[in-house]
Amino acid sequence: MKFSVDERLKNLPSYPKASAYGYNGSFVQLSANESPYPPSPHVISALIDSLMYLNRYPPSENELKEAIAKRFNVASENVIIGCGSNEIIELVLKVSKKESKNKVIIPHPTFAFYAIAANIYGYEVIRVPLRDFRISLDEIKKNLDEKVRVIFLSNPNNPTGTIMKRDEFESFIAEIPPEILLVIDEAYYEFVESKEYPTSSKYIERVPVITLRTFSKAYGLAGLRVGYGIGDAEFIEILHKARQPFSISSLALVAAKAALEDASYTKKIVKSILKQKEILYDGLREIGIEFVPSEANFVLVKFGKGAENICRMLLEQGIIVRWMGPMGLPEYVRVTVGKKEETELFLGTLRRLVS
Amino acid sequence: MKFSVDERLKNLPSYPKASAYGYNGSFVQLSANESPYPPSPHVISALIDSLMYLNRYPPSENELKEAIAKRFNVASENVIIGCGSNEIIELVLKVSKKESKNKVIIPHPTFAFYAIAANIYGYEVIRVPLRDFRISLDEIKKNLDEKVRVIFLSNPNNPTGTIMKRDEFESFIAEIPPEILLVIDEAYYEFVESKEYPTSSKYIERVPVITLRTFSKAYGLAGLRVGYGIGDAEFIEILHKARQPFSISSLALVAAKAALEDASYTKKIVKSILKQKEILYDGLREIGIEFVPSEANFVLVKFGKGAENICRMLLEQGIIVRWMGPMGLPEYVRVTVGKKEETELFLGTLRRLVS
Repeated sequence: MKFSVDERLKNLPSYPKASAYGYNGSFVQLSANESPYPPSPHVISALIDSLMYLNRYPPSENELKEAIAKRFNVASENVIIGCGSNEIIELVLKVSKKESKNKVIIPHPTFAFYAIAANIYGYEVIRVPLRDFRISLDEIKKNLDEKVRVIFLSNPNNPTGTIMKRDEFESFIAEIPPEILLVIDEAYYEFVESKEYPTSSKYIERVPVITLRTFSKAYGLAGLRVGYGIGDAEFIEILHKARQPFSISSLALVAAKAALEDASYTKKIVKSILKQKEILYDGLREIGIEFVPSEANFVLVKFGKGAENICRMLLEQGIIVRWMGPMGLPEYVRVTVGKKEETELFLGTLRRLVS
Repeated sequence: MKFSVDERLKNLPSYPKASAYGYNGSFVQLSANESPYPPSPHVISALIDSLMYLNRYPPSENELKEAIAKRFNVASENVIIGCGSNEIIELVLKVSKKESKNKVIIPHPTFAFYAIAANIYGYEVIRVPLRDFRISLDEIKKNLDEKVRVIFLSNPNNPTGTIMKRDEFESFIAEIPPEILLVIDEAYYEFVESKEYPTSSKYIERVPVITLRTFSKAYGLAGLRVGYGIGDAEFIEILHKARQPFSISSLALVAAKAALEDASYTKKIVKSILKQKEILYDGLREIGIEFVPSEANFVLVKFGKGAENICRMLLEQGIIVRWMGPMGLPEYVRVTVGKKEETELFLGTLRRLVS
């Protein structure tokens, strides 16, 4: 190669191949924490109405921002739309970096993109192990120093499904210096049932926190790439400055707005998924397999020493789940909660394989 | 604001509001160099077939990469897909930066995003004025030094529509040190008629060049955000490493592939736009208004001292064109070539306003 590029980037590992994703109708896909249901008829109809205007650049994001702001009782200046929450994760890292030795703190294991993005932007990544499958805010506090710029906390945490509780979250934020930004990723927000769950967007006026959410999970729009952030208006404005002008497609804007309008459809889907989660729990207990109770649409299941092998056998039966070996949990598998027939197929196949 | 962010970013100007874009059916929009036609029926039908799978994450980009590679006779490893060519412009800047004092060279005026993105990534932007509305490669050569990392050249150049010719391009690339990357933005490639136009992707094996193209113009998919780059395989691999995994929506991948398959539709549209450009030229000559002959789907028109005012009057008549004052050409207006009825309406209204 002739070009001279940043050596640090040259030495980064390549991403996992995207071909691990993408729906293939011939498999039961319980590996990507997607909704098992298509978007609502209202969303589909809004999309169809927009197809003939695709020759035009995307319209302003203001309508969607206002719909989100209204729904969560914030000002539209507190909202940023992203090409998935991934874009906002990148933007936060892009604007927060000041020196080559800056650090990012993440729990371990957690959503993989925080560390990938932090590496791209040249941060040192400090991984703080979970304790009993939960984020340990005490351990995170022990790692704070003046080099730390951002802390990423996924709540519920992926892949464990556990949450930080309101009291521990409140006492944690009271102790975080205002120079450090807390990114609270609430991708699974809509599935949480616990009364002790803290909605982080309520704290944006008082503490350095930005809340991330997505239309990729409960709203069933993973293919369209649209998420949002809620935070301090001045900080949101700086994120906007660091952004490219057209990262969100017209169809993503249209679909997200229509999905918000059709709240009863989302509610119905969430209810159905939560019911299947209970059925999954019951089935696992009956087979005698341990799992971590989850506040999300996935469950961390203990397959034991043969976990990788069981995943391979499930794949041969047409069922894709996610082995957690690469996440440092080789005896565990993350199973997305699917539709009734998918839960039945998964449990039935597992029962046969285990016996 | 409580957070401490990069001061340089704090002081950047805000983007022009996106609400300047977005199709509003009640106007004749000749301001964004879009195709005036909707996507082909083949594209629309492929999109409709995909709507029910939007709950799944986007599939691999390999199919689209292979289709592009096949079409332009390169390997799929030479191709990168972007969320518009904008994403690739950003990636190039992201991986090329080594020191705070690095420079980017751009012609002036040219497509605005090169400078916006270079500012975000902290490059010094060197603007080299056009000569007779054409990029002056001689002047650019005079600005080369060891701090220059990237040169952006739009061919045809936006907003002038002029091209660099093959002989001047070849003698230019022979003199560029291999540490400097040439980004040749061929967003308007499909509209070029000149026999002297150099297709830059033919040089990727020999010189440090990456070619950018887009589905936003001739293919009529501006709303979906999809472009591509063709370059040295090793460099493309580094761009991939610096990218987020899911920046391209399922629908963008599906539509771009279908659009490539329907070559006869694109050909028909390009032919129609080129015909309307001739009619626009004739009309302007008849009214006695000067313009710069263009190899793209837009024309730089000299409205004279009252240019801004004429744009305002056209707007009052429902016609949006782009005043070039902010680009440093206050007597000029950029007019996108539209459909037959749009050309007629524009010329008729202009004739009335001028007389």
